[in-house]
Amino acid sequence: MYVILVYDVDVSRVNKLMKLCRRFLFHIQNSVFEGEITESNLTKLKLKIKNVIDEGYDSVIIFEFESFNPKFAHKEIIGVEKRPTDFII
Amino acid sequence: MYVILVYDVDVSRVNKLMKLCRRFLFHIQNSVFEGEITESNLTKLKLKIKNVIDEGYDSVIIFEFESFNPKFAHKEIIGVEKRPTDFII
Repeated sequence: MYVILVYDVDVSRVNKLMKLCRRFLFHIQNSVFEGEITESNLTKLKLKIKNVIDEGYDSVIIFEFESFNPKFAHKEIIGVEKRPTDFII
Repeated sequence: MYVILVYDVDVSRVNKLMKLCRRFLFHIQNSVFEGEITESNLTKLKLKIKNVIDEGYDSVIIFEFESFNPKFAHKEIIGVEKRPTDFII
């Protein structure tokens, strides 16, 4: 399946969360990841996210789609394509 | 159609961009908007975004889907449901 993951977590937990998400998805913008992922990996990722974030304070939203079918979906980037990860690694 | 919009723009332009996006979509997380929108309104929104952001520096990604069909799509929130707009307005 195809997912878009967006996070809003305390700065003290950002690095750990980003490191985790990078293992499963692509970092496409400051606080946004996307990618194809198997259901079992997605389940794994969600469990690990719960171990990293403070569920009473942080927020992670995962939009899940059966697939990113080009007939039905389109991604448009206005402005620059920021890939912060590329610069860090 | 259903869209998810994520932005990463210079702080000097955040307020103007958020005000614009709120006219068309729902603010669901720090730098994330979502919602159903007509094609003509989406075209309008994109043009207005280009007038607000610095296309050489800022980034706005719009994921477009024919519709957010519950059979094919699912949205999961881990942690709290942050709706910053609710607190501002």
